[in-house]
Amino acid sequence: MTTRRQNTPNAARRSDASRRAILTAAFELVGEVGYAKLSIEGIAARAGVGKQTIYRWWPSKGAVLFDAFLMLGEGEGGEAALPDTGDLEADLKLVMRATVDELNDPRFDEPMRALSTEISHDPDLAAVYRERLDGPMREIKKRRLEAAQRAGQLAEDLDLDMAVDVLWGPLLNRWLQRTGPLTPEYADKLIETALNGLRHRR
Amino acid sequence: MTTRRQNTPNAARRSDASRRAILTAAFELVGEVGYAKLSIEGIAARAGVGKQTIYRWWPSKGAVLFDAFLMLGEGEGGEAALPDTGDLEADLKLVMRATVDELNDPRFDEPMRALSTEISHDPDLAAVYRERLDGPMREIKKRRLEAAQRAGQLAEDLDLDMAVDVLWGPLLNRWLQRTGPLTPEYADKLIETALNGLRHRR
Repeated sequence: MTTRRQNTPNAARRSDASRRAILTAAFELVGEVGYAKLSIEGIAARAGVGKQTIYRWWPSKGAVLFDAFLMLGEGEGGEAALPDTGDLEADLKLVMRATVDELNDPRFDEPMRALSTEISHDPDLAAVYRERLDGPMREIKKRRLEAAQRAGQLAEDLDLDMAVDVLWGPLLNRWLQRTGPLTPEYADKLIETALNGLRHRR
Repeated sequence: MTTRRQNTPNAARRSDASRRAILTAAFELVGEVGYAKLSIEGIAARAGVGKQTIYRWWPSKGAVLFDAFLMLGEGEGGEAALPDTGDLEADLKLVMRATVDELNDPRFDEPMRALSTEISHDPDLAAVYRERLDGPMREIKKRRLEAAQRAGQLAEDLDLDMAVDVLWGPLLNRWLQRTGPLTPEYADKLIETALNGLRHRR
């Protein structure tokens, strides 16, 4: 339990506890039953709150799930950075292998697919996702690439947003579209191929 | 109308016409109402057939939609090939710009998102998709890259499956996850970045 200021009213404390219970329930449930069968009723039952409590704070199950992902992200802290040992290729392989592990983890796989599905079909949710989750993560990646660019390891005219897409896009698409298994070897080869490019080097 | 062999029974002809009507209805409807609201009832009404006719041939709306995509693909012929002018970069830009146009076309956008969602959540459908749609398209792409590799334009040790992922994965992920607009300029820059790689060339 965290220490709380004395003037925090009990109601606000209860409200915060309910909120966390609801988000945890949504995240667990979507992993167990899938997004299609996720319901506000089910989340309410699992969290031990009334349906109306959920509807007071969120307009839809997609919105609940999205906040559940945000809560997960908060634990990682606002000052997150990718590793920087000076060896860009090794650092990126480490990060990409960790992403492979996460995507292969059954606790994350189904909730993340559910979120991706919602984003694919809902431009408004996609805009919120870009602003609150994808955007900040992208900045963290770009900061690492920028350091490499300053060190002369990346092309001077490289567009860092495109670089992020070329590094992470193939893995995410392979995962979402199930075009092949996600393995550490795939992660390594992806980094090598993106860094070196497809062209024959003369 | 195509010429038919004389011994084709009327029943088989009617059956083929119903099949095509159902698939066309499924494709049109998913674009209008989205996948969540697509129903066997709706497809049957639009196609002018009974629900039981659909259930006799397909177990689910996802299966109907998948066959609708296959029917669409059949029109493109089995001998499809990417352009080969000898200029790989120009040829790939042409292809990638055509993909951008297709993904931006409202007639295709929603049905293709619906199919992607189904694939993401259904490993069995994903396996059929890989075998019957993604696999053949991937072979066509690899054939063009192989020609470039033989011509000494691509790295000798390049894994062509990885090359396909690095070229197309970022665009497909950007489209599905709505991380940014799909433009001809994006298509061009993606090809250039994938071919040249991210590294500074000394």
